[in-house]
Amino acid sequence: MKILLHTPHAEDAPAWVASLQSAQPSAHVRLWSPGDTADADYAVLWRPPAELFARRGKLRAMFVLGAGVDALLALERREPGTLPAGVPLVRLEDAGMAEQMAQYAIHAALRYLRRFDEYDLVRREHGGDAPWRTLEPHPRESFHIGVLGLGMLGAHVAKSLASLGFSVRGYSRGMKTIEGVDTFAGASQLPAFLDGLKLVVNLLPSTPDTDGILNRDLFARLAHGAYLVNLARGAHLVEADLIDALDAGRLAAATLDVFAQEPLPPEHPFWRMPRVTITPHISALTLRDPAARQIARKIEALERGEAIGGIVDIRRGY
Amino acid sequence: MKILLHTPHAEDAPAWVASLQSAQPSAHVRLWSPGDTADADYAVLWRPPAELFARRGKLRAMFVLGAGVDALLALERREPGTLPAGVPLVRLEDAGMAEQMAQYAIHAALRYLRRFDEYDLVRREHGGDAPWRTLEPHPRESFHIGVLGLGMLGAHVAKSLASLGFSVRGYSRGMKTIEGVDTFAGASQLPAFLDGLKLVVNLLPSTPDTDGILNRDLFARLAHGAYLVNLARGAHLVEADLIDALDAGRLAAATLDVFAQEPLPPEHPFWRMPRVTITPHISALTLRDPAARQIARKIEALERGEAIGGIVDIRRGY
Repeated sequence: MKILLHTPHAEDAPAWVASLQSAQPSAHVRLWSPGDTADADYAVLWRPPAELFARRGKLRAMFVLGAGVDALLALERREPGTLPAGVPLVRLEDAGMAEQMAQYAIHAALRYLRRFDEYDLVRREHGGDAPWRTLEPHPRESFHIGVLGLGMLGAHVAKSLASLGFSVRGYSRGMKTIEGVDTFAGASQLPAFLDGLKLVVNLLPSTPDTDGILNRDLFARLAHGAYLVNLARGAHLVEADLIDALDAGRLAAATLDVFAQEPLPPEHPFWRMPRVTITPHISALTLRDPAARQIARKIEALERGEAIGGIVDIRRGY
Repeated sequence: MKILLHTPHAEDAPAWVASLQSAQPSAHVRLWSPGDTADADYAVLWRPPAELFARRGKLRAMFVLGAGVDALLALERREPGTLPAGVPLVRLEDAGMAEQMAQYAIHAALRYLRRFDEYDLVRREHGGDAPWRTLEPHPRESFHIGVLGLGMLGAHVAKSLASLGFSVRGYSRGMKTIEGVDTFAGASQLPAFLDGLKLVVNLLPSTPDTDGILNRDLFARLAHGAYLVNLARGAHLVEADLIDALDAGRLAAATLDVFAQEPLPPEHPFWRMPRVTITPHISALTLRDPAARQIARKIEALERGEAIGGIVDIRRGY
């Protein structure tokens, strides 16, 4: 069995080959390079160029090394027919990502609840002359957190926040039930979900329906001085609306891990906004060994003719 | 029944009077002022001057508005006989403090685990020209956390960290058992407790035995590049040893909520050290209403002749 691998970073490609090979010892794992149109049974991909898909009709499945497939589907929208027809597209399910997302969200929620960001700003502004003053923490009872998106990642994040005693709501397209979380579904329930939230954590898939959802209308429904944490995709956020909302004090602060353009350009205003915390798309790293083991198990299941999880509904977009 | 109250901050004194009065409607609550030597049955205190204790032999109990009584016992050591003999000294038990301590410790642990402090430093140093680079997170399996002190606060902090999946050890004078936590007791087990810890959270009581425990010998037993979080008392830390350990890279960073001198003087080197995070003694604020209710319930129990918790062993120091 032949497995074709593409990773965008040359430096970690050998480690990926080794992980996949060790998870699937009988397979032949090869790194794709431009011009390679030789046969392959499975492809394991991370942001591949269109060229990789030329004459890939014989693939039995394509695995994406991440939870989101928006980049691949955008490629297909720009150049229809790029993705080989009828070949299942499979995204990672968890593989350590849910836990990392929960860590990130808990850290941000506690930082804002206890106003550690403001203590830090006061110190940066005043140094040793900073006023030695208690900032009244937000009462946890009214620090309502809303998680947008209740897939494998969002559901775990919502549950983890609830288990720390936070009041948590969750929103998804179809209705979900999560212990300790008030759930809402569909566009008609979005206003009730948003009403008075103090912190919004975004974990939606990026699709034409959800892109731009983090905008001034959404911000206007939150509690005054609310916080935003975007862990999904830059396309979800209307950046100009966030800048306006922060300038007006409508939002108090934001933590962003994803951006319309990555790396975030040096001249971008976010860099100069002390209330915007920036991380370079690291909220959930794809962990090589768990990811390789998950893909290997799915390939084995497919070879036995069994159903697998994580197959993307291309029309729906996730 | 007469309750005498002392708070060091004039601005919140009326709110304390109101809270105590509403928790104990039949009592007469009065704010102490210099010269007041009139009768009182109970005293509720926060860093009182020695003068308050003149002719207080008739007190049935003294309640301290905090978890630590080191300031009062230090007063007694400096001026023996200040505290009225035989009057029980009672400290707060939890009253919302354990949960706040756990939030603080979890926030610091996740911040260091995921290296959010370093992302922030890189941005502060480089602005928009910051390298867009993933900092490999510490593996959680080897991110061993040690909690010094397993009283009501330390035990809750240790349990909360363990429930997030951290590997947690706990240290106390006498042996304790806490689910999910490896416990160690007494000076002879201190080296085994410390061996290879990546993060130390200090929640010990401040006594002549424990003061200065956070010193170069302790740091030398930790993992290289370990982290320190001090939530107890400034007296526990040998500040010069911490500065040396940070300069040498022996420790990676520290988060300090308490200091030898508070407010931390403007010229103190900690202000200029980007690896030292400073908060102004806010890790667990005394919450007025829960504290007032706890004291009221204990006064009722004492009046009925029942035993109460939180009585300080003055010889032991906590």
